[in-house]
Amino acid sequence: MSKVPYRIYLSESEMPKQWYNLRADMKEQHDPYLHPATFKPVGLDDMKAIFCEELCYQEMNTTDRFIDIPEELQEFYKMFRPSPVVRAYNLEKVLGTPAKIYYKFEGNNTSGSHKLNSAAAQVYYAKKQGIKRLTTETGAGQWGTALSMACAHFGLDLTVYMVKVSYEQKPFRKGVMQTFGAKIIPSPSDTTEVGRAILKEHPGTGGSLGCAISEAVEAALKTPDCRYVLGSVLNQVLLHQSVIGLEAKAALEKVDEYPDIIIGSAGGGSNLVGLVAPFMMDTLNGTRKNTEFIAVEPASCPSLTRGRYAYDYCDTGHVTPLARMYTLGSNFIPSANHAGGLRYHGMSPAISKLYHDGYIKAVAVEQTKVFEAAVTFAKAETILPAPESAHAVRVAIDEALKCRESGEAKTILFGLSGTGFFDLNAYTSYLEGTMSDYIPTDEDLEKGFATLPKVE
Amino acid sequence: MSKVPYRIYLSESEMPKQWYNLRADMKEQHDPYLHPATFKPVGLDDMKAIFCEELCYQEMNTTDRFIDIPEELQEFYKMFRPSPVVRAYNLEKVLGTPAKIYYKFEGNNTSGSHKLNSAAAQVYYAKKQGIKRLTTETGAGQWGTALSMACAHFGLDLTVYMVKVSYEQKPFRKGVMQTFGAKIIPSPSDTTEVGRAILKEHPGTGGSLGCAISEAVEAALKTPDCRYVLGSVLNQVLLHQSVIGLEAKAALEKVDEYPDIIIGSAGGGSNLVGLVAPFMMDTLNGTRKNTEFIAVEPASCPSLTRGRYAYDYCDTGHVTPLARMYTLGSNFIPSANHAGGLRYHGMSPAISKLYHDGYIKAVAVEQTKVFEAAVTFAKAETILPAPESAHAVRVAIDEALKCRESGEAKTILFGLSGTGFFDLNAYTSYLEGTMSDYIPTDEDLEKGFATLPKVE
Repeated sequence: MSKVPYRIYLSESEMPKQWYNLRADMKEQHDPYLHPATFKPVGLDDMKAIFCEELCYQEMNTTDRFIDIPEELQEFYKMFRPSPVVRAYNLEKVLGTPAKIYYKFEGNNTSGSHKLNSAAAQVYYAKKQGIKRLTTETGAGQWGTALSMACAHFGLDLTVYMVKVSYEQKPFRKGVMQTFGAKIIPSPSDTTEVGRAILKEHPGTGGSLGCAISEAVEAALKTPDCRYVLGSVLNQVLLHQSVIGLEAKAALEKVDEYPDIIIGSAGGGSNLVGLVAPFMMDTLNGTRKNTEFIAVEPASCPSLTRGRYAYDYCDTGHVTPLARMYTLGSNFIPSANHAGGLRYHGMSPAISKLYHDGYIKAVAVEQTKVFEAAVTFAKAETILPAPESAHAVRVAIDEALKCRESGEAKTILFGLSGTGFFDLNAYTSYLEGTMSDYIPTDEDLEKGFATLPKVE
Repeated sequence: MSKVPYRIYLSESEMPKQWYNLRADMKEQHDPYLHPATFKPVGLDDMKAIFCEELCYQEMNTTDRFIDIPEELQEFYKMFRPSPVVRAYNLEKVLGTPAKIYYKFEGNNTSGSHKLNSAAAQVYYAKKQGIKRLTTETGAGQWGTALSMACAHFGLDLTVYMVKVSYEQKPFRKGVMQTFGAKIIPSPSDTTEVGRAILKEHPGTGGSLGCAISEAVEAALKTPDCRYVLGSVLNQVLLHQSVIGLEAKAALEKVDEYPDIIIGSAGGGSNLVGLVAPFMMDTLNGTRKNTEFIAVEPASCPSLTRGRYAYDYCDTGHVTPLARMYTLGSNFIPSANHAGGLRYHGMSPAISKLYHDGYIKAVAVEQTKVFEAAVTFAKAETILPAPESAHAVRVAIDEALKCRESGEAKTILFGLSGTGFFDLNAYTSYLEGTMSDYIPTDEDLEKGFATLPKVE
């Protein structure tokens, strides 16, 4: 019989009552956001037109290490949190590794992912401010679903601009958002100026995340009592997602474990930072040394491993502020990788900074290798991972196999951020052998870099 | 702040180590199974050709109240159990009811339902006996998925006969079973005599559960080292599913609760008995009085509320033994209700007996009312119920609303047996107003009853 249980749950009373703000411990901050028209640093007032007020303060907060989670929001969290840390005994057995593999599983809610953590927070603050309606974009659909659920709970209207190709390929995602009362518009659409301009230029386009962001922001600015909300990239989202790591750390403490390696998939970065932040705190403060932090991204959209560290727009339509980040260029169109949540040209400025300063490593993996790992994991652990999460699974397995070679019994923690219930087309394509890997050439990347704005 | 937590989890060490065999406490047993050729009671040897040996003993066991869960199986359970009992605070608030509503949530595993409890048990015993491959049928796909997962874990081959209409409408279900390594055959197929005969008579048929059972049984009998397994109806399945109720009872004891009303949806009956068995024990033994047990079935397939208590075949092809049960006739074709898991002409003989003897009530509900309840529940509690489970949600809400009228603070427990991730077509149909209710006429039922076998 095993000493450490398969699933380590905190009790309700042990759940975090504060978020952890990693930026308060960072030695240096990322460069300021810039206004898209003037390239001057964005002020709070500029931001408040787009985002809810309290979220703007959180976005700029580099001093408070811990920020209270409002009680009403704690109550909401209790419907689906705490989420378990799982010891992957069966995966260890299948791999024949001496490594101890743990994963934090965030997929056990109807949104199917960690996105609900920030969705609920953002809707809560919007409601508190008297905002009546929200707009957002969604690609893979996890964020849109999470936000629909939160809006249904707190009683706000929601319009989701869904990347057209996903809208058509994922009718079930549309269905679940509609069940929770959201209005779904395929993007690009004729409901915004940005959308109409893009449709005119590219009549048959399937859209992109960058384009859907532009439309959602424009719609929010033009609608009374409305704000825009975003599911990743921003510091506010990273803050909310810190509940993942806080719970993981507390759960591992219960079994006297501290990870040697922490692995998270990274699209915009919220899942990765959410998991690693409270452990990174120990590294930044010098209380722990030699913890490895690994960001995993798709080889088809390699912003960290092959991107430029430069100022860029966060969207295709160039209506959002610029951020200094690792980017492939806001006009880079990633190939039709099945991990829609990782198909973003940029990366959270905070992660970009940490990566630039050497605190985080990055690995890019090909999707057939990712699905191979996903199927191995599913068969061993009975959970079907989301393609996004499977990127982390791939690298966790690779690290565990290295341990088999070296004989080291390292403790590995990775983030299983979501489930693959809406991604069976991708699994079927993998099983049938029709899935291909696409790796952009240097020339492809140069085309993206050529669109980077010239910021002094 | 609430005293009772939202989600009540047992610790791993509190998980049941034995199943509870309700039949050992029943005053009278259901009538024996009969051989389909001779109408004579079926002996152990007849059953062993179809089912695994240990499962045959469990099927016939009316004396052992508790049966050990093998250790290796307990380990498997730990990957997805214990499942929580949830206090539906938000649903209570939305309904404005003084009732205390609890639900046992069995959907947080990749099969999406409680089916994995028995799937794992059956595959475990098959492996122990040296069986190499299994056959089964699946309708909605929850059972097929669960069995695929268990077979992947224990290393057995699996062939699933999937009702053709589901095979075509639910490619994602097919995809997830294939991911776990199962072979899926749309039924009726040309791989069995029964299938060929049905295809000849009804060339364009979309199949039925009863027909898929016939094919799976035939295939098992003709394949070396192969057995057939079934996901509901049988006593062995009811036994395995008792973990649901055992956990629920232990969790409620932790918060000093005992339900006044226990509600479960009933197709074949495994979910219902799984939940109610340990509470029914108290009623049968006289230690508790006045507990209400309610079985919920679709108005379109009302085997308990409008069926006959009679001997009938368990399948359409008449290759399985006969059971005395509430039935609509093995040739009754239920309408295209979206709750595929409840579209079965019969009902577990044990439940039929308990219902016949007045221990259980039954309610039939129309599917538009079911989906109305499902959407209310989803918005309040953030979980998207399976259409099958939503039948129980409907009646739980109705009982809670009665409490609002009467002012009674009853304690209601219902089984949320699964999630609706693969049922978004149904939700969309409900939201778009294209869902209809079908209630069979007395004439429709008479046609079904006319096919009942003449057993002396």
